[in-house]
Amino acid sequence: MVDFDLRSANARLRASNPLIQCITNTVVQQFSANVLLAVGASPAMLDHEADAGQFAGIASGVLVNFGTASNHQLLAADAAIDVANAAGKPWALDPVSVGAVDFRTSRIRRAAADHPTAIRGNASEIAALAGVGLGGRGVDSTDEVDAVLPAAAKLAQETGAIVAVSGPTDAVVAHIDGTDHVARISGGHEFMPLVIGTGCSLGAVTVAYLAAARSGLADPDADASALSVGERTTDSGAASARFEAVAAAHAHFAVAGELAADGAKGPGSYSVNFLDALHTVDGEQLAGARVSLSTLPANESVQA
Amino acid sequence: MVDFDLRSANARLRASNPLIQCITNTVVQQFSANVLLAVGASPAMLDHEADAGQFAGIASGVLVNFGTASNHQLLAADAAIDVANAAGKPWALDPVSVGAVDFRTSRIRRAAADHPTAIRGNASEIAALAGVGLGGRGVDSTDEVDAVLPAAAKLAQETGAIVAVSGPTDAVVAHIDGTDHVARISGGHEFMPLVIGTGCSLGAVTVAYLAAARSGLADPDADASALSVGERTTDSGAASARFEAVAAAHAHFAVAGELAADGAKGPGSYSVNFLDALHTVDGEQLAGARVSLSTLPANESVQA
Amino acid sequence: MVDFDLRSANARLRASNPLIQCITNTVVQQFSANVLLAVGASPAMLDHEADAGQFAGIASGVLVNFGTASNHQLLAADAAIDVANAAGKPWALDPVSVGAVDFRTSRIRRAAADHPTAIRGNASEIAALAGVGLGGRGVDSTDEVDAVLPAAAKLAQETGAIVAVSGPTDAVVAHIDGTDHVARISGGHEFMPLVIGTGCSLGAVTVAYLAAARSGLADPDADASALSVGERTTDSGAASARFEAVAAAHAHFAVAGELAADGAKGPGSYSVNFLDALHTVDGEQLAGARVSLSTLPANESVQA
Repeated sequence: MVDFDLRSANARLRASNPLIQCITNTVVQQFSANVLLAVGASPAMLDHEADAGQFAGIASGVLVNFGTASNHQLLAADAAIDVANAAGKPWALDPVSVGAVDFRTSRIRRAAADHPTAIRGNASEIAALAGVGLGGRGVDSTDEVDAVLPAAAKLAQETGAIVAVSGPTDAVVAHIDGTDHVARISGGHEFMPLVIGTGCSLGAVTVAYLAAARSGLADPDADASALSVGERTTDSGAASARFEAVAAAHAHFAVAGELAADGAKGPGSYSVNFLDALHTVDGEQLAGARVSLSTLPANESVQA
Repeated sequence: MVDFDLRSANARLRASNPLIQCITNTVVQQFSANVLLAVGASPAMLDHEADAGQFAGIASGVLVNFGTASNHQLLAADAAIDVANAAGKPWALDPVSVGAVDFRTSRIRRAAADHPTAIRGNASEIAALAGVGLGGRGVDSTDEVDAVLPAAAKLAQETGAIVAVSGPTDAVVAHIDGTDHVARISGGHEFMPLVIGTGCSLGAVTVAYLAAARSGLADPDADASALSVGERTTDSGAASARFEAVAAAHAHFAVAGELAADGAKGPGSYSVNFLDALHTVDGEQLAGARVSLSTLPANESVQA
Repeated sequence: MVDFDLRSANARLRASNPLIQCITNTVVQQFSANVLLAVGASPAMLDHEADAGQFAGIASGVLVNFGTASNHQLLAADAAIDVANAAGKPWALDPVSVGAVDFRTSRIRRAAADHPTAIRGNASEIAALAGVGLGGRGVDSTDEVDAVLPAAAKLAQETGAIVAVSGPTDAVVAHIDGTDHVARISGGHEFMPLVIGTGCSLGAVTVAYLAAARSGLADPDADASALSVGERTTDSGAASARFEAVAAAHAHFAVAGELAADGAKGPGSYSVNFLDALHTVDGEQLAGARVSLSTLPANESVQA
């Protein structure tokens, strides 16, 4: 039986102030850094291939997003992923525009095969990464979140990752002890997709919550193997903790995204309000987020 | 006789939601993406040389801006331009700081020779690209817009592009059926040049309006040759449509830039208001933009 | 006896509108450009290795910040530094995360040995660069400003640079005529470190004030050797002018950072207010900045 304690998840984030290494696209680096600071994490966008692996040894977690990746970022991500996996640190993959163009798709598929702790994308990206659906033309989602849940569950089973699908209502899918669990999180606002980086920065915050969850363990290093997704763990407690962490990140965005609409006259002022709201949202408000838990019937699974 | 219907131009943009590939400088990627979203287009900043050509086949149009171009962007632009030209899709060149330094100048001149649909810069950049004037020291304009109109007309004749000059009053120059047409667009505000990216993102919106104009054709692909600037067309209707599209982009900025001053206390709040205003400006307001049309006397042309 | 005239320093900046070349990390390029525009300077983020040296010949000063440097930026910085030093133009080094990872540390140490006019970082970065302290894990400062002053003085003596340490109260250290002078500047707000780029952009503004101070000389080129830090000058007047310029940049930020809190609901609105305030702060307000001057006892110096 899965259940969430979002108040505690947020408290762990604020208390641990995790250092999140973002190998992410240059369009959203500034916004993602501000978002991480607003929620109580520390950003580092270091992405040189010569240093990225070493820095992953210092960081609490890593985000990999190839939105504008040039070769140094691709090499840096490989190095950082190796170090994160070896240390049992969480890392998330944002498969921006996977399926749209061949070279990028190939690089994203390689990263997805490297055991990410979480994968976060829109519906068309998750469908394309799972090998179903029509592929995306970019950062817009053309499929619906609910329609893609079987593909998300397939991806969760195959990769061991918690899989998050962003949309008007977000969905987070976790495969725990043979069951596909789904958390649906409602909130946000119609202006949200008009602010670049609200999706990409959610990937960064997902890593922050995952890192905080790991820090909440009595001895993170002793439990590294349980939290590592480099090997499929049967530790349902650790898997549930990761599921809760990813859902908490989405709830944080959903609540702040709703509050940000107050007084917003368009996407410019909405964006400003959103950063303010991310900072002021507390555990009490997170506990009140509209999150519903369910399981996916086995017959809804997609066959590979 | 050239005349504009800016209301319809805007309606086409909102209806077609074109996907604009921006190979642009990293300083303004975030702002340009937010601007495109605000006006009803979709941004994609993909700039890897291995993917850029393929992505141009998906995109509705391409912006090329070498403000901080490193080698992968230079190669990506070449690939995207080839694909856009072959498909008759619009692309615009922003010649940032052309004339200031040699390597950049050489690369911008190569791009300018590749038949851009539109060229947008400040007065010193247009003068430098046309081979007259004093050259620029960067993104600031030191020449005046009116003084550079003959150079803009020369550039329009030589490249087949619609040439836009940004300044306190913008000017858009089109060479149609042997006549140099000029649209002067007034608006904006003194804070506008204090917000980085207001020029560069105008280049992106120019592509968006050009793409929307193309989508407004009954069968864009059948008419590709007419709208392609890869070959000089004698189709004055298509040329007028491109002229109108570039002017509409500038009018959209001029109107929003004026509205944005309301309540602005400095460049920070002005920037926020500007994004809000870009989003809320409608066809009615665009139709009320201060746009004046005229022709350039033949003897004002610059001899090459 | 050192004393400051911040009103005149600001007047020189507004009057000279210096062009500042920023070879800086992509996370903060947009913010840094907006900050430079707000204070009355012109930004240029050109960082291609083939052009950077030539552009430094046009620019009034150069900022070097390797926060996300890939190879082209590292090469561009070398070229720009050589040109700036040869011309006696000011340049500043921001040693982001020095000490955290090896390759970056090596590159930053090389740049620090190239006679920067100023070095600006947080306490852990200054300590690491001086070869003392524990090193930083990123852009957060873990050491205290006062504790690092001996290390800053050591760095100032060894490099000839004015050394600035950012923190709740900033400190600027200058070694003039055998004495370590310290200016402590108070202001800002708790939201300031939650806005990415407030440190990095201060480095850019430091270069702007240094360039303005140089422009204030009757004949900058004739006095180039006096202001150049490529050779240790005994011209205490020029050194004092550089000390004043760096302090003025910090005072500008401190005052604007305090004003920006008015009406701020979080880091988003604070950031907007900050850009507004940077623009509106005038010489009168700068003259009222809380700046205290003192000297560092010789026995507080760190032995190498």
